[in-house]
Amino acid sequence: MSFDDVIELAKRRGFFWPSYMIYGGSSGFYDYGPLGTLLKDNIIAAWKREYAREGAIFLDTPVISPADVFRASGHLEKFSDIAVKCSKCGTPYKFESLIKSLGINEIAKTVDEAAAILEKYDVKCPKCGEKLKNPYDFNLMFRVGSNDLYLRPETAQGIFINFKNLYNYARNSMPIIVCQVGKGFRNEISPRQALIRMREFSQAEVEVFYIENDDFPIPDSSVELNMLRNTGDLLKMKVSDALRSGIIGNRVMAYFLNKTYEILLKLGFQPDHIRAREHDPGERAHYSSETWDFEYLLDGDWTEIVGVSDRGTYDLGRHQQFSGENFQIDGRTPKVVEPSYGLDRILLTIMDSSYYRRENGYKVLRLDPHISPIHMAIFPLQKRDDLDKIAKDLFEKMKNIDPFIFYDDSGNIGRRYARQDEIGTPFCVTVDYQTKDDETVTIRERDSTSQVRVKISDLLERTRSFPDSLSALF
Amino acid sequence: MSFDDVIELAKRRGFFWPSYMIYGGSSGFYDYGPLGTLLKDNIIAAWKREYAREGAIFLDTPVISPADVFRASGHLEKFSDIAVKCSKCGTPYKFESLIKSLGINEIAKTVDEAAAILEKYDVKCPKCGEKLKNPYDFNLMFRVGSNDLYLRPETAQGIFINFKNLYNYARNSMPIIVCQVGKGFRNEISPRQALIRMREFSQAEVEVFYIENDDFPIPDSSVELNMLRNTGDLLKMKVSDALRSGIIGNRVMAYFLNKTYEILLKLGFQPDHIRAREHDPGERAHYSSETWDFEYLLDGDWTEIVGVSDRGTYDLGRHQQFSGENFQIDGRTPKVVEPSYGLDRILLTIMDSSYYRRENGYKVLRLDPHISPIHMAIFPLQKRDDLDKIAKDLFEKMKNIDPFIFYDDSGNIGRRYARQDEIGTPFCVTVDYQTKDDETVTIRERDSTSQVRVKISDLLERTRSFPDSLSALF
Repeated sequence: MSFDDVIELAKRRGFFWPSYMIYGGSSGFYDYGPLGTLLKDNIIAAWKREYAREGAIFLDTPVISPADVFRASGHLEKFSDIAVKCSKCGTPYKFESLIKSLGINEIAKTVDEAAAILEKYDVKCPKCGEKLKNPYDFNLMFRVGSNDLYLRPETAQGIFINFKNLYNYARNSMPIIVCQVGKGFRNEISPRQALIRMREFSQAEVEVFYIENDDFPIPDSSVELNMLRNTGDLLKMKVSDALRSGIIGNRVMAYFLNKTYEILLKLGFQPDHIRAREHDPGERAHYSSETWDFEYLLDGDWTEIVGVSDRGTYDLGRHQQFSGENFQIDGRTPKVVEPSYGLDRILLTIMDSSYYRRENGYKVLRLDPHISPIHMAIFPLQKRDDLDKIAKDLFEKMKNIDPFIFYDDSGNIGRRYARQDEIGTPFCVTVDYQTKDDETVTIRERDSTSQVRVKISDLLERTRSFPDSLSALF
Repeated sequence: MSFDDVIELAKRRGFFWPSYMIYGGSSGFYDYGPLGTLLKDNIIAAWKREYAREGAIFLDTPVISPADVFRASGHLEKFSDIAVKCSKCGTPYKFESLIKSLGINEIAKTVDEAAAILEKYDVKCPKCGEKLKNPYDFNLMFRVGSNDLYLRPETAQGIFINFKNLYNYARNSMPIIVCQVGKGFRNEISPRQALIRMREFSQAEVEVFYIENDDFPIPDSSVELNMLRNTGDLLKMKVSDALRSGIIGNRVMAYFLNKTYEILLKLGFQPDHIRAREHDPGERAHYSSETWDFEYLLDGDWTEIVGVSDRGTYDLGRHQQFSGENFQIDGRTPKVVEPSYGLDRILLTIMDSSYYRRENGYKVLRLDPHISPIHMAIFPLQKRDDLDKIAKDLFEKMKNIDPFIFYDDSGNIGRRYARQDEIGTPFCVTVDYQTKDDETVTIRERDSTSQVRVKISDLLERTRSFPDSLSALF
């Protein structure tokens, strides 16, 4: 399937679309429409349940932060991209993307190196042909108001600076797994389309504080993972074996790489559409000593959806140094492993990986029932003979149990199925003439298109523990 | 109970605390800790279900908006407070609060009027005694970066500018109820403590687009509402009667005032702790022709927790004018009623209204089980004779069904109950010696402190449809 089809579906059916279009748009911002909002909420809820099962605790801190925080974290000094602006037409470019798009295989770590590369390859503005020069460092953080405030570029710092409060909450026991879901902001030089690189985005981040590597067990997974090492080797193996053979640096990294893989599979990704790629030393963020990105092959490009980093003692150490607080436990600073999930990218790539056409050409979004925006649709077979009245009564009853359902009586029944298939609704319930005789309805399952007939009372009872109770019927 | 006790509990047990304390704090920002994050999430989920039952659709738009949006909405021009800064000690004051705190009963609509009042009453700086003069307009919006971008002061505008997309999603049918939950930002001159007036806050807003007043039925409510009219009359009556007698201006306002009241009661507020207060004409926001605030008596002050405003055709009309888009349907611009919920204030006041002491002096948070942060605690009666092993096994099984549970085996059982009571956990399950004989456990309910004994298999089954199935036992 083409990626463009997914974007077209997203816009037409109300998953997401570019923001502020009535005012000409604003690059790097997207709106989630009615279905996208529900899908995103459901992904977050599923993610939260997975980490709650690990004993994680949750935190919710402001997006506006004083400069002190980012002075300590290193973001004020180091969180920048090299940019270059055309002196003739004014188009700004992110140096790294520009060079890559021109097929130049070089890396610049400093502005001087970037200037040398522009000179060496005689790089010209792709838009107007002017020679590009004078690259500069561009800090990606947005400043707020006239005060010394910034919009956070990641949710993580709100967790680090609260370490003592969290340790207190955990009754002074270690390890501690802390999760935060929220917005992050980066003043991207060149935002990319459709949720991939936005100026405002949603993250689900986890900071795992631990003292000893054996605070977590060797992970137990039955599914092999595609792994691309920074040596270039491509392997397919269990995470536990990658740990034993030294490919993954330590047990905590392995545990959360495995956990992340399990979550992605539960969300509905196919194992072969995902890989974990090890960062090159020069590619890693300033705080990291080992990073693996989970990537999904989107429209021909491997795209990061989760990063798992070994942040060591960097963050607590820096905040200890800058704030004067003592973050040590028994004289040792806890270490940190961070799985960081890009929620917008996960939503987009789940839609991409779920999208297919039936043999008859009809489009289907094969979303996992736990995250489908609409849980169930209810139809009368016909809009007469009281079938619509019975269906509406059932709809009203159902809403009290699960309000995320949809009533539809327009067009023929095949068309109504197709409309729900396209947005990933897992179950469609139809009230037909037999309903009047025996109070049964049909339930049609999206992927198999098979139908079962159940008592209305049974449907209501099973809906109480949606969706597993219904899935069990098929 | 004292409000200070609630704040103390909130901090000690991990509901919320002031942000950035390791860097000396930053006025107007709060962190939600582990329990507060879950409580807030549960309030949002309950609220969403209530509106989904009304057929509402959801939207999620960026917090960063281009200036165009606020030029049209009127916020750039009008969303300001009159401020005055002491020329000697530099303390900034919000004029309205300052005057009120000094017992001066005057209202200033312009900077000139404010200057006259300062002069007339010879107002001095409460901090250093210097005479205060030169009041000025202070726009409450935060500017972002060096571009023409702002942080939204309310979520509402993201809904208005998407009206055409939403109308399209609703297959061109009216009325449309649109909900958005998200952050808003106001650069408050003098933030107030503890979630009441913050620079960054969470809102749950609803924009109801309608054409005719009879798009909604006359609301049906059995519970009378305390209503304070702007004439000074205090009434206690059903919303439907207030509509019939002309106290509420139109049917859509009445329908959503009633809906809001029902939601507040479901969230656990007592009818007598709430009132609806009608705004004075001079007090209303620039877009409103009728506004009622739901208020809760907090620490001696009636505090707004929800505002329900008749915004008429103001917003769509302005965006139509400024963007050139046509928002009319059959030549008429839809009207708007807006219930706007302050989530932080609701969380704080729910905690306040739920907090009490038992006769033995123990503290209890009588939260509705649907919003309690921890759903259930599991204890072994003793940490020996395999009771802890059985309890831990049960805990592991339960986590797969509902992960928001807590295991505790430290201290005596009375102390463990008390710890859970204080954070609002509705049910505590204890594994005791009888469990070894017949696979039953006791479930103790928080408010009645009564206990029932059930089979473990029954508990697991009932947890699937938590919390109603358990509440039914008591």
